[in-house]
Amino acid sequence: MQHVRESFGRQKAMTLIGASLSALEAGRAEVSLPYRPEITQQKGYVHGGIIGMIADNACGYAAYSLMPASASLVTVEYKINILAPARGSLVAKGEVIKAGRTLTVTRAEVYADDGTHVASMQQTLMMLANTPDTPE
Amino acid sequence: MQHVRESFGRQKAMTLIGASLSALEAGRAEVSLPYRPEITQQKGYVHGGIIGMIADNACGYAAYSLMPASASLVTVEYKINILAPARGSLVAKGEVIKAGRTLTVTRAEVYADDGTHVASMQQTLMMLANTPDTPE
Amino acid sequence: MQHVRESFGRQKAMTLIGASLSALEAGRAEVSLPYRPEITQQKGYVHGGIIGMIADNACGYAAYSLMPASASLVTVEYKINILAPARGSLVAKGEVIKAGRTLTVTRAEVYADDGTHVASMQQTLMMLANTPDTPE
Amino acid sequence: MQHVRESFGRQKAMTLIGASLSALEAGRAEVSLPYRPEITQQKGYVHGGIIGMIADNACGYAAYSLMPASASLVTVEYKINILAPARGSLVAKGEVIKAGRTLTVTRAEVYADDGTHVASMQQTLMMLANTPDTPE
Repeated sequence: MQHVRESFGRQKAMTLIGASLSALEAGRAEVSLPYRPEITQQKGYVHGGIIGMIADNACGYAAYSLMPASASLVTVEYKINILAPARGSLVAKGEVIKAGRTLTVTRAEVYADDGTHVASMQQTLMMLANTPDTPE
Repeated sequence: MQHVRESFGRQKAMTLIGASLSALEAGRAEVSLPYRPEITQQKGYVHGGIIGMIADNACGYAAYSLMPASASLVTVEYKINILAPARGSLVAKGEVIKAGRTLTVTRAEVYADDGTHVASMQQTLMMLANTPDTPE
Repeated sequence: MQHVRESFGRQKAMTLIGASLSALEAGRAEVSLPYRPEITQQKGYVHGGIIGMIADNACGYAAYSLMPASASLVTVEYKINILAPARGSLVAKGEVIKAGRTLTVTRAEVYADDGTHVASMQQTLMMLANTPDTPE
Repeated sequence: MQHVRESFGRQKAMTLIGASLSALEAGRAEVSLPYRPEITQQKGYVHGGIIGMIADNACGYAAYSLMPASASLVTVEYKINILAPARGSLVAKGEVIKAGRTLTVTRAEVYADDGTHVASMQQTLMMLANTPDTPE
């Protein structure tokens, strides 16, 4: 799983919002995001796009955990429903639904620390075999 | 359009990533995002979740531009396809497809400053009549 | 649950493709579709749009099972991933993720009779209170 | 474009619902569906899943029009917003947004014959090079 942790570690955008990879196993990944005023929208809730960011990453690294370190991964598309206003710290739990040769389909659930189910995502990723997962 | 600009101005998450509302007319909004290393993913491209954030906002404020200042707006869901790696500064252009009494459907296109079509979003929003668009 | 069964019974499109409501409980519904050459696409698999039809209905009636008979329901949007070619008879299993006052979010999984996981859907519906669920 | 017309012609599901390929050019396809009571849902409108079927096909054949006859095409996923109740005959207009080497992204708009904008779809397809587009 070292390639997953290293890839996450290179994501400066995760550092910017303060998110970390809090759990990882084959086909599953969890991204945690402590509450900070800097990540909120106009009403003081966590921004829907920020929720999408951590769900996208939880899905992507769940998928990457099943791939060889020699491969790279790109997000093809994702769809997210915001189910409730996001107050407080969040955790996004991603899992693989179908790992195909080229495409992988994943889902994530996002929860607030009071247990509220905040969002649900369904995502498609494409594996790029023998492609470095680092800057060109 | 003052209520749209004020609402965008209250989004601390936009300040965090460095995005601004660069154009606005009835049913259309544009969000611009200068390139910075802080918003990148593991390969040095702009993070897909960050692309989602500005597209989500371009859509949302396109919708809000057609609503009264007494109303508030929530994102129900969005779906985004990432069409190409995002290098450089970005602009997300949102527009309203259908403005209903309760629900509004929007789309956004995201372009890089070299003209690359980076992403396409389709989104659903719900208007909350007579609801403050400010923290409780 | 009588209002759910009656509503499904009025769907002539379900009769056309040969689908039936095979299971129903609060928050869950199952739609079954026997294989017939008439529902196939160019390669002889069940058409992706037909898979979408039964998943859409499994989701919709899962949602309707939690609503009063005086209400009507409209599909706002759905997103479906086709995970594998669909051979043989199918069953779509829908369930409610979040039942809100106005909006309900649901999911469905579609399986073939050999156990293959054929598709995954995520859907949004809107309740119309005190609205007949019958032709005008 | 002969391979596109032949592929559509093999789709028995299109015959079942009464749909035809009414226009075709490079990167664009149109599917027409005359109104019939057999394709309706519980309130007498055209079924949302049927709308999805013709939009899925308009998108898919728009994509296939840009591919060689030696290739086959699979739907990866689609997302559709139903914008208005569908009364009367329908036409789905599909077009390619991005034609990649492996993946193609498309959109479709569905209109009723009174001009109502009924639905909007965004879809992802995958090309299978050197694969017959016929039953095994």
